[in-house]
Amino acid sequence: MPFDPRASSIDADRLWTDLMALSAITEPDRPWTRRSFTARFAEGRTWLGNLFTEAGLSIRIDAGGNLIGRLDGRLPLPPILLGSHSDTVPSGGRFDGAAGVIAATEVARAIVGSGERLDHPLEIVDFLAEEPSEYGISCVGSRAMVGALNDEMLSRTNGSGERLFDAIARMGGKPTVLERTEPLKIAAYLELHIEQGRVLENGGIELGIVSGIVGIARIELVFLGSADHAGGTPMKLRKDAAVAAAEIVSWVARQAALRADRNRGHFVATAGIIEISPNAANVVPGKARLVFDIRAEDSSQIDDFILQLDRYSLDAAERSGLKRDRFAIVSKTDPTRCDPHLRNVLARSASKLGYSTVELASGAGHDAAFMAKVGRSAMLFIPCLEGKSHSPDEWADPDALAMGTATLYEAVRSLDIADRTY
Amino acid sequence: MPFDPRASSIDADRLWTDLMALSAITEPDRPWTRRSFTARFAEGRTWLGNLFTEAGLSIRIDAGGNLIGRLDGRLPLPPILLGSHSDTVPSGGRFDGAAGVIAATEVARAIVGSGERLDHPLEIVDFLAEEPSEYGISCVGSRAMVGALNDEMLSRTNGSGERLFDAIARMGGKPTVLERTEPLKIAAYLELHIEQGRVLENGGIELGIVSGIVGIARIELVFLGSADHAGGTPMKLRKDAAVAAAEIVSWVARQAALRADRNRGHFVATAGIIEISPNAANVVPGKARLVFDIRAEDSSQIDDFILQLDRYSLDAAERSGLKRDRFAIVSKTDPTRCDPHLRNVLARSASKLGYSTVELASGAGHDAAFMAKVGRSAMLFIPCLEGKSHSPDEWADPDALAMGTATLYEAVRSLDIADRTY
Repeated sequence: MPFDPRASSIDADRLWTDLMALSAITEPDRPWTRRSFTARFAEGRTWLGNLFTEAGLSIRIDAGGNLIGRLDGRLPLPPILLGSHSDTVPSGGRFDGAAGVIAATEVARAIVGSGERLDHPLEIVDFLAEEPSEYGISCVGSRAMVGALNDEMLSRTNGSGERLFDAIARMGGKPTVLERTEPLKIAAYLELHIEQGRVLENGGIELGIVSGIVGIARIELVFLGSADHAGGTPMKLRKDAAVAAAEIVSWVARQAALRADRNRGHFVATAGIIEISPNAANVVPGKARLVFDIRAEDSSQIDDFILQLDRYSLDAAERSGLKRDRFAIVSKTDPTRCDPHLRNVLARSASKLGYSTVELASGAGHDAAFMAKVGRSAMLFIPCLEGKSHSPDEWADPDALAMGTATLYEAVRSLDIADRTY
Repeated sequence: MPFDPRASSIDADRLWTDLMALSAITEPDRPWTRRSFTARFAEGRTWLGNLFTEAGLSIRIDAGGNLIGRLDGRLPLPPILLGSHSDTVPSGGRFDGAAGVIAATEVARAIVGSGERLDHPLEIVDFLAEEPSEYGISCVGSRAMVGALNDEMLSRTNGSGERLFDAIARMGGKPTVLERTEPLKIAAYLELHIEQGRVLENGGIELGIVSGIVGIARIELVFLGSADHAGGTPMKLRKDAAVAAAEIVSWVARQAALRADRNRGHFVATAGIIEISPNAANVVPGKARLVFDIRAEDSSQIDDFILQLDRYSLDAAERSGLKRDRFAIVSKTDPTRCDPHLRNVLARSASKLGYSTVELASGAGHDAAFMAKVGRSAMLFIPCLEGKSHSPDEWADPDALAMGTATLYEAVRSLDIADRTY
């Protein structure tokens, strides 16, 4: 069904216009790109801060560099948090992250507009650097908020040698006080996001209630060979790091397809980063760096795959006379179950508005997985065209966004009443 | 045998010191890098210009952007040319190219020092951009010198959109007059170079007389898939351009090894450039760009391999539901035979000094191949450590360099007398 403006307090046009305006803040030569920690990202943040302020929210940046807009509640209760992230992957889309931040803002505006104050404070969060950052780590802000950003992570550097610690400070955070921050108390965390898959679209279902979020492991692998002349070095005497890398990329794709077919839940593995060096036409590649992304609903599947990859890549290096210089688990998160009570509230809110729903797993990681470490956390998916995401072709229907936002509004209202004694 | 300073007019210490001084002009963060058309390259050129001037040579930059130092002869004869190139690949070595330019300079200095003028003019050439440049073309200067740099090549652009035409002008060349330049007349072209292979080292042979230079083809291949979310996109629904690229890289290495074993002369093929996009950990690669370098002494072997690669890559794209967006022969040179007379002069000059020699093919392309289009052209190889080249580990012994340079000196003296009536 299309979105019915008479059934909700949210303003679908304002919602869409603002999302498009935020998305337009992009690196002009490669839309849609707003990489965390860049000047473009800061520009988006300034715009968001103004939007929060105009909506009647007080704004602050917390120790972890998250931008937060707050609407005070009538009672001294822990806040209901709504949020997502405004950063993107390189050449990403207009919806992943941004849709959730703008939807949350619209919920706050609708509440302000209704004239009825909530009992709970309501906080809208733009989490810092949810996407993999140049510091080799994702969900920087939500990790920080729940005390899961440790010193080792903070000391990681980007290509220019800047530490994540200093990058967070540069974004207005206070990484020095991260350790001393009080344990966070929240009434609930809800996040609207595009599905980044095809389940809703294929099933003709209007909204998805997320049952859980996959665990994600990232593995960095480096092969060292010998950067010899491509003309004078006979095939037999080569130590070509790119040829070994190619063998591993093929193996991972083949093995992941086999595991996905085993019906033990969602399983995917991707070689998303491949870099060879010196990357010149007439030099045998002396070095290859690969980053693999492995995801499953069942954490034992991830552990098992990592072991297999470890053994196979070591064998491949030995067979080719190369050195496997690095095999590191760069990051690893466990699968997360979304809170059953919140899932219920979301499903009832959608139902009240007449929208169809289904429970489904999230194949993507989200800040909601980190928020689940300190309190009740759940997610609402809206369909996106052909499941496309992290791509300029990413698209969600304005009506779908409006229905999701209206459901989020109902859920907040419902939680505010039900959880008054939280 | 070690170099005997009493047997030659050349100064081995001065030769080595100057080569090290030129090599030290490098991008500091990635030795040894002096990429053509960069500020660092221009810095090297300024240094070389001073060296030429101090040696008593008059200097000029020709229409193709080559730096030339000239010693006038006593008679109105075409010049004997000696040369090589001062540019390097990224993270290359200190000898490839630079050794030939400095050796040629030392020959000129030794002739000036001897007080005996040559009948022929002697010209020392630092050819522009012998290594593959950012404009997708190599041997820019030698092509230009022999009239083999056409308008299509001149219109190619680098990553910033600058045309090769303008880049040559920026280096002091006059690309507008390239077409109107008179056909070049030379008495001979001789080039000293490191072997970039292991034949001399393995055989304990002091110098290599190059029989011929391999033909080289460069193929650019682009696969287009779909840049989808690495979490939400099931393995079965992916169009992963990197997985297809990996298949081709493996195939090329396997097929090239088979051809090399056929004993139909030197054959090598390399995937030296592999670039995937967007190259982010959590995005299925939507695009992959590969550049292959294919070399053989027999040009039919190259043509046959290109046909095979064309068919196989098209099949691979179809099997994976990808688009093969580009399959282009970016450049292609024919194999070149070195001039028999000059080979003879080089071999006799080495023999006169007591150095052992062998005839061997060059697996690398050289400016000498283009010079062969307008006159007699030949090359002299000196051994290099473990055949390493295009690598920071590239190394040649100071004695080997001195022996090669002394041989070049003898050859020039011998040619000057023998070819007086050229």
